[in-house]
Amino acid sequence: MWILSKIYVVGIGPGQYEQMTMRAADALRACDTIVGYTVYVELVKEHFADKEFLTTPMTKEAERCRLAFEEAKKGKNVAMICSGDAGVYGMSGLMLEIGAAYPEIEVEVIPGVTAATGGAAVLGAPLIHDFAVISLSDLLTPWEKIEKRLLLAAEADFVICLYNPSSKKRADYLKRACDLMLRHKAPETVCGIVSNIGRDGESCRVLTLLELRDTQTDMFTTVFIGNSQTKEIGGKMVTPRGYRNV
Amino acid sequence: MWILSKIYVVGIGPGQYEQMTMRAADALRACDTIVGYTVYVELVKEHFADKEFLTTPMTKEAERCRLAFEEAKKGKNVAMICSGDAGVYGMSGLMLEIGAAYPEIEVEVIPGVTAATGGAAVLGAPLIHDFAVISLSDLLTPWEKIEKRLLLAAEADFVICLYNPSSKKRADYLKRACDLMLRHKAPETVCGIVSNIGRDGESCRVLTLLELRDTQTDMFTTVFIGNSQTKEIGGKMVTPRGYRNV
Ligand SMILES: C[S@@+](CC[C@H](N)C(=O)[O-])C[C@H]1O[C@@H](n2cnc3c(N)ncnc32)[C@H](O)[C@@H]1O
Ligand SMILES: C[S@@+](CC[C@H](N)C(=O)[O-])C[C@H]1O[C@@H](n2cnc3c(N)ncnc32)[C@H](O)[C@@H]1O
Repeated sequence: MWILSKIYVVGIGPGQYEQMTMRAADALRACDTIVGYTVYVELVKEHFADKEFLTTPMTKEAERCRLAFEEAKKGKNVAMICSGDAGVYGMSGLMLEIGAAYPEIEVEVIPGVTAATGGAAVLGAPLIHDFAVISLSDLLTPWEKIEKRLLLAAEADFVICLYNPSSKKRADYLKRACDLMLRHKAPETVCGIVSNIGRDGESCRVLTLLELRDTQTDMFTTVFIGNSQTKEIGGKMVTPRGYRNV
Repeated sequence: MWILSKIYVVGIGPGQYEQMTMRAADALRACDTIVGYTVYVELVKEHFADKEFLTTPMTKEAERCRLAFEEAKKGKNVAMICSGDAGVYGMSGLMLEIGAAYPEIEVEVIPGVTAATGGAAVLGAPLIHDFAVISLSDLLTPWEKIEKRLLLAAEADFVICLYNPSSKKRADYLKRACDLMLRHKAPETVCGIVSNIGRDGESCRVLTLLELRDTQTDMFTTVFIGNSQTKEIGGKMVTPRGYRNV
């Protein structure tokens, strides 16, 4: 017997409940079970008190996906939640890959505000023009590939947004990335860092590329490296829309 | 006399009201006046019936910003609305630039779901890993600069998301972009297009880079060009998280 049920893969936005879209909140309300990494579940739990919550640790991602499909197979409506947008270094890809083995279950992805645009709003308007998003985590990508992308993105004069800028094991990765940036970008390039976007303890700082090189960040931080036109205006990081001014 | 008032620059998400975050909706409710381009105002107007709405045509952007500041100077709480995220080819940059002349007025940027992640959710999970966002509009950027970014982003094997893929005047720009992509990406690279994300008439299609080259799009379309690992799974466009699989 085939039960057709649905799994929503929901991006809850960078921070607290209010950062979620109304569509995301509606989907969570329509579910029986909410599956997610412990930290994200804690951010929203109190608003969905009548739901069943299933959590797994950060590293058990494939397991978390299968858990969601197995719940859906029982006929439950399930939501898998991710911070930010589920499609940016999130779970929607793995859910669709693993979902190939569960053709009777429909997967719907509901977008959210990702750390790049959430953090940009805190800093001002760093991303206004063409930009590249790069993760410094080499857990699933060889460092040589990350290095190549950093160099070519810098050469192309993109604004560059870095996710996963560092962790205990990778304490010097941001410095290494900045050294690559400095081959194509000026040392005084305007940069910004934002931590705990939309959460308690949100903080940000605008600084030069040279200063960024010697800054320690953590895994709750997103880093922005300006293009050749990015300016600081009244403490905000602002990239102009283009070259010919309106 | 100085009146300290506030302007919210609000990204309303790619489509209808429900695509907005709760925080964005709260900000609009807290305002007296909502300023925006006519089309975006129409998308949300019915939900904020008691507000004053001020609209200007698409091209009068600096004028629209000044209008917002002049209203705020009268002591009103003002929201400037943009589609998607106000910080991605949106108005937050110009607002902060023009705002330098109005130091008594505070500008707060409220992020929204941008077309890149909104469209990605419709297609599946194309952006899961490192990506570059490029606008094909040469209104404010010389075409040579766009060309350089396209080539370097393709060489870096980024997933590439194209905004403003074409207009009447620029009917062949997407074809030109695809020809540049084909110097570094295989003709069978998995691509996707999404039109009218979150609006009436939303539609999407997964196709190869070679097919994309001969496809006509319009200004309500966002285009996605996969990286070397992007796959089609059950009609969805999916980029794996990394190279070593979980
Ligand atoms: C595995 S990625 C997940 C990204 C998430 N899916 C998104 O769209 O924002 C984790 C990285 O995202 C960034 N990030 C996510 N949420 C953040 C927040 N609230 N504040 C600052 N950075 C955040 C950090 O760079 C972090 O190391
Ligand atoms: C001037 S840009 C504005 C982008 C907007 N600020 C955002 O963050 O999505 C306009 C381009 O964004 C893309 N776009 C915006 N809204 C869209 C929608 N609802 N459906 C498809 N594409 C959209 C299209 O490529 C369009 O040409």
